[in-house]
Amino acid sequence: MECFDRAEFWSREEIERAQLVRLRNVVGQAMRSPFYAKRLKEAGIAPETLKSLDDVRRIPCTTKDDLRSQYPDGLNTLPQCEMVRMHASSGTTGSPTVIHYTQNDLNLWADLMARCMHMVGVRREDVFQNITGYGLFTGGLGLHYGAERLGCLTIPAGPGNTTRQLKIMRDFRTTVAHIIPSYALYFGAALRDSGEDAKNLALRIALIGAEPHTEETRKRIEELLDVKAYNSYGLSEMNGPGVAFECVQQAGMHVWEDAFIAEIVDPDTLEPVAEGEVGELVMTTLCRQGMPILRYRTKDLTRFIPGECACGRHHRRIDRILGRADDMLIIKGVNIYPMQVEQILMSFPEVGENYQIVLERENYLDQIRVKVEIKEEHFVEDMRVLRDLQKRITNKLRDEVLITPRVDLVQNNGLPKAEGKAQRVVDSRES
Amino acid sequence: MECFDRAEFWSREEIERAQLVRLRNVVGQAMRSPFYAKRLKEAGIAPETLKSLDDVRRIPCTTKDDLRSQYPDGLNTLPQCEMVRMHASSGTTGSPTVIHYTQNDLNLWADLMARCMHMVGVRREDVFQNITGYGLFTGGLGLHYGAERLGCLTIPAGPGNTTRQLKIMRDFRTTVAHIIPSYALYFGAALRDSGEDAKNLALRIALIGAEPHTEETRKRIEELLDVKAYNSYGLSEMNGPGVAFECVQQAGMHVWEDAFIAEIVDPDTLEPVAEGEVGELVMTTLCRQGMPILRYRTKDLTRFIPGECACGRHHRRIDRILGRADDMLIIKGVNIYPMQVEQILMSFPEVGENYQIVLERENYLDQIRVKVEIKEEHFVEDMRVLRDLQKRITNKLRDEVLITPRVDLVQNNGLPKAEGKAQRVVDSRES
Ligand SMILES: [Zn+2]
Ligand SMILES: [Zn+2]
Repeated sequence: MECFDRAEFWSREEIERAQLVRLRNVVGQAMRSPFYAKRLKEAGIAPETLKSLDDVRRIPCTTKDDLRSQYPDGLNTLPQCEMVRMHASSGTTGSPTVIHYTQNDLNLWADLMARCMHMVGVRREDVFQNITGYGLFTGGLGLHYGAERLGCLTIPAGPGNTTRQLKIMRDFRTTVAHIIPSYALYFGAALRDSGEDAKNLALRIALIGAEPHTEETRKRIEELLDVKAYNSYGLSEMNGPGVAFECVQQAGMHVWEDAFIAEIVDPDTLEPVAEGEVGELVMTTLCRQGMPILRYRTKDLTRFIPGECACGRHHRRIDRILGRADDMLIIKGVNIYPMQVEQILMSFPEVGENYQIVLERENYLDQIRVKVEIKEEHFVEDMRVLRDLQKRITNKLRDEVLITPRVDLVQNNGLPKAEGKAQRVVDSRES
Repeated sequence: MECFDRAEFWSREEIERAQLVRLRNVVGQAMRSPFYAKRLKEAGIAPETLKSLDDVRRIPCTTKDDLRSQYPDGLNTLPQCEMVRMHASSGTTGSPTVIHYTQNDLNLWADLMARCMHMVGVRREDVFQNITGYGLFTGGLGLHYGAERLGCLTIPAGPGNTTRQLKIMRDFRTTVAHIIPSYALYFGAALRDSGEDAKNLALRIALIGAEPHTEETRKRIEELLDVKAYNSYGLSEMNGPGVAFECVQQAGMHVWEDAFIAEIVDPDTLEPVAEGEVGELVMTTLCRQGMPILRYRTKDLTRFIPGECACGRHHRRIDRILGRADDMLIIKGVNIYPMQVEQILMSFPEVGENYQIVLERENYLDQIRVKVEIKEEHFVEDMRVLRDLQKRITNKLRDEVLITPRVDLVQNNGLPKAEGKAQRVVDSRES
């Protein structure tokens, strides 16, 4: 099979051998920064103390607050004149999170990005329309450099201006677009409303990322634009995009484990979760020179998808992002993520758009109650039908979250509608 | 003297020898496009027919309308798979003007851009804040790649958000900024209003372009930001920025004549103007592979600055852009540009902000009348003082535009003020 670089098809053994060598190397590099010099010394970590990959867990985690506390350059391992790029998170409060890159770091990033795009079939002959913001946000320049590495005709279209985007897409026979999922839906609807058949466009691939989205959203994008849509995962702390990417199997995103160590941990205990269970993704840069980051708590919830991918790559796959670790609920000692509940509910065709998770306390015991709206046509008089539905929802939720919730079926529009964002979780344990 | 590449300091002879070789070469390349194949054949032009540099004038000019008529790719000399970038003018009407680049074209563009920045002292140690839009506009990515070539720490800040720009500038000790003149004035005023002394910033160089502006604006930017501000000239049809750039003498912009042939012609007759006279800049790409453009009518008015530059470079200098060819007036067979008149008027400290150029016809002869507001403190009772001022303005205008205008001195606020943009030229010849 054609591949962008050899590491793309390394065996597990090759990956893990390289990971250990690179982990020792990056820890040595990290110790050249003021922050890690202190942090690693306190933890008794030095390259030679790392005997196996499992020893990565001896390294203390790094948080967003750590990065903020080191603003502007406390994690840099090299003098500023060696740095050639800076990106920063927009951030809503406090100091932004800042990432510095050397030329080597940029080259590696472009290579990883090119590998992602190549994996889903992007080639030199393609016309690549980059419909995302450039600037400090890593999404735009990240894919721009990846496409340049592949030799695509890159159109730095930037975001917005649907009419112009469509004109470019038609007139230059764009074959690949990078687009955020919410705009892809909007754009697809605009295309449909324009009366033009998506099949007349040359577009065949959409690269979608930067926003959590559901499988339903992906399918809708694929229908509206008549494309294959591939999920992209990244964060500026790990370069930007190019961290994990779906292959053509569309069965999870391969994390490039020659460049990163990925762990999934319980956000509460920081212990690894069992194979296939949901937890917080923790990432280590293995090759970054200017600003290595060790065991970064991404706050993103996902799980490793067990088993081998049919594509033949051995880099492990993560599931789409299932939410933020901050949203985690702990009920009877079990971690529950609202997104898990939502996914189960939405798999029932009878279920409407609104639901609510209510935490209750009864006889000193925490309980979880799920109130869910049923579509009008399914809210029938026959109680047996409704009781059967209630039972099926309860069982499926129990299978997923491992405790048995109480499920209330509510008629359509029966739940309070908040202005704007719905309040999905109500904690009534204190009252 | 340190230079970015040897061509920067070529002698006139070296420049002109290379120009002839490259002109023949680029004409041969251009003929591979459908548009020039036809156009050049009709004009009887082939590489071997070009015996001297003066023969460039035998080549028909290319206009923006030509580019539009060839939308989307009629000027391309190579199949699309050889193209790696597309930029487009935003344009207000009709099809956009589209430029395609091969990887070689991008490399050359980045080299020229790096040469410009290096010329004014930008070095690897600099922190470069790129305060301009990325995307289809060539300004952002143009300087981005130039800075990358030099190894600067590039901060792709993008436009707007003054508070964040200032925070970045302070926290990362930005030394070089790319900023459009109008925003530089706004930004400088915001800095002053914040109570911070510009001298406390590390900023030492501002690269300003993309908008015509006066010497007064440049001086104001230099004062407000405590920097040296260097003028940049470019247009997407000639790659983007990197066509002409000021050296530290700040006495006109060196056109990189190893990469372009620059001519200044009478917009009406297309004949070359006399040395030092104002006319329309006509440009030919000498090295572009994917989409050469021959004798492009930029519509920009400027003049060659006579004589050698004190910096020792032999690439000829153009003056700042003095307006658009479309604004040209023809009076008694003489071309007059409103911006010329404005520059003369504004050199008198007695002159206020408002003026008007009125075209009149008297006994079948065209006349030009210049009405100019005089500041309140200078509009004195003593008619001798005013008559003396009137005479001095008349003489200086005559020296510049070569015909003698009538000059009316008007008291402050004595001229009509239009909403928004002032109407500078009134043609009353028909009435
Ligand atoms: Zn796969
Ligand atoms: Zn000079």
